[in-house]
Amino acid sequence: MSAYVQDVFMLFGDSITQGAWAPGDTGIGQRLSHVYARKLDVLNRGYSGYNTEWGLPILDQCIAKPHDTVRTPKIKVLTIWFGANDACIKPSPQHVPLERFIANLQAMITLVRERSPETHIILITAPPVNTIARKADLEARDPPQALDRLFATSKAYADATKTLAAEHGVGVVDAWGALWTACGEEEAKFAAFSGDGLHLNARGYEVVYHELIKVISERYPDVHPDKLESVFPLWKDIDWASPQSSLYVSRRE
Amino acid sequence: MSAYVQDVFMLFGDSITQGAWAPGDTGIGQRLSHVYARKLDVLNRGYSGYNTEWGLPILDQCIAKPHDTVRTPKIKVLTIWFGANDACIKPSPQHVPLERFIANLQAMITLVRERSPETHIILITAPPVNTIARKADLEARDPPQALDRLFATSKAYADATKTLAAEHGVGVVDAWGALWTACGEEEAKFAAFSGDGLHLNARGYEVVYHELIKVISERYPDVHPDKLESVFPLWKDIDWASPQSSLYVSRRE
Repeated sequence: MSAYVQDVFMLFGDSITQGAWAPGDTGIGQRLSHVYARKLDVLNRGYSGYNTEWGLPILDQCIAKPHDTVRTPKIKVLTIWFGANDACIKPSPQHVPLERFIANLQAMITLVRERSPETHIILITAPPVNTIARKADLEARDPPQALDRLFATSKAYADATKTLAAEHGVGVVDAWGALWTACGEEEAKFAAFSGDGLHLNARGYEVVYHELIKVISERYPDVHPDKLESVFPLWKDIDWASPQSSLYVSRRE
Repeated sequence: MSAYVQDVFMLFGDSITQGAWAPGDTGIGQRLSHVYARKLDVLNRGYSGYNTEWGLPILDQCIAKPHDTVRTPKIKVLTIWFGANDACIKPSPQHVPLERFIANLQAMITLVRERSPETHIILITAPPVNTIARKADLEARDPPQALDRLFATSKAYADATKTLAAEHGVGVVDAWGALWTACGEEEAKFAAFSGDGLHLNARGYEVVYHELIKVISERYPDVHPDKLESVFPLWKDIDWASPQSSLYVSRRE
């Protein structure tokens, strides 16, 4: 179950709301998700083709009633994507020794399995570091800073993540490997996937997204987006003569 | 409170996760939010600068413990954005008469106020319709369809939304007015903000986003993104010598 961590910014409406996260089209949902990160969860409650008549019974189900408050959503999928900061070298306060990094990921898997056994866990390996770009970025700061990440060290943390996933039988997205292949195994060419040598740009995220969907397809097909039914009906599937009957949906157990 | 409507796809990690919805950079979070719309809520649990050592106590709080399951998140803000489909003309099954549309929006406001009095409600008016583009879109379909929305009708639904917001003392984003001004009050020029004459593109959403942030700033400044504190500390604010003390956060009441 997903715990109560952040409050919610809910966007309720029709396709203009539902489509507000579409790739390449910087919608209002995407912008709000960005500026409210770590503050509020921005929830998409947009229903393509719906009018207010069909929307009202949906809203009735989206705003908790007193007896609803004992329910929390299941976490169907959880990605765990660390390593980029753990792999910082000393004396960075972000550095975590490799053995401790492995133990921490193990503890995370154990915690989720014990408390939320229905969750599909997917580890993601940290991306490669382009130390040429990272060094330039840090040297340009005021005051200039020394290089804090090494190519080989970051690779070791990514490799350990892959090994751990295999040992524990959880899914893994090898972002490091996919990005390294994509840039022709040449550190300088990683610039096409990461502006600052550490964070991913649109092309970098695209590579990881397709790897993630591949892992979901192969390993956890029940949660592939095409396999999941929409919670509330598509507007053409509503019983237009008697909409209430099709618009009240019993929550899955 | 936000009801249990959809299960969750949780992305847990560092800045590479946190930044995965950044505008103009089509991140993995944005893509997942898009493909899982109406199926799973994709939650951003990315913490810039965090390593696994600091991440573990966060995960411990993000996965519900048995006694957590009585809690659900507060809805701090709710936008209600309808009218684009209600304003369809007969014989469209999406058509809702203007008086009924107004009654439905009133019922939505009442429902939220009664059940979730802490929620800031913001109505958004439907965008203008570019009937030139909409007509061409519908005529190009197989079989061709007749025009289903009229410029003046859509404006009447937008005007009614504004009036209702004023009467009920809730916030309103006049998307219709802002977009109409942006396109120089010329229907054909709305093409720059909407490809199909109905849905918004990136430029259209940008206009509405800035209007929404303006309404939040002026009317509900407590929920402006810059006024909200991050739920968990920024990594430079963690007590590095004794991280647990700063990483366990008591949920606000």
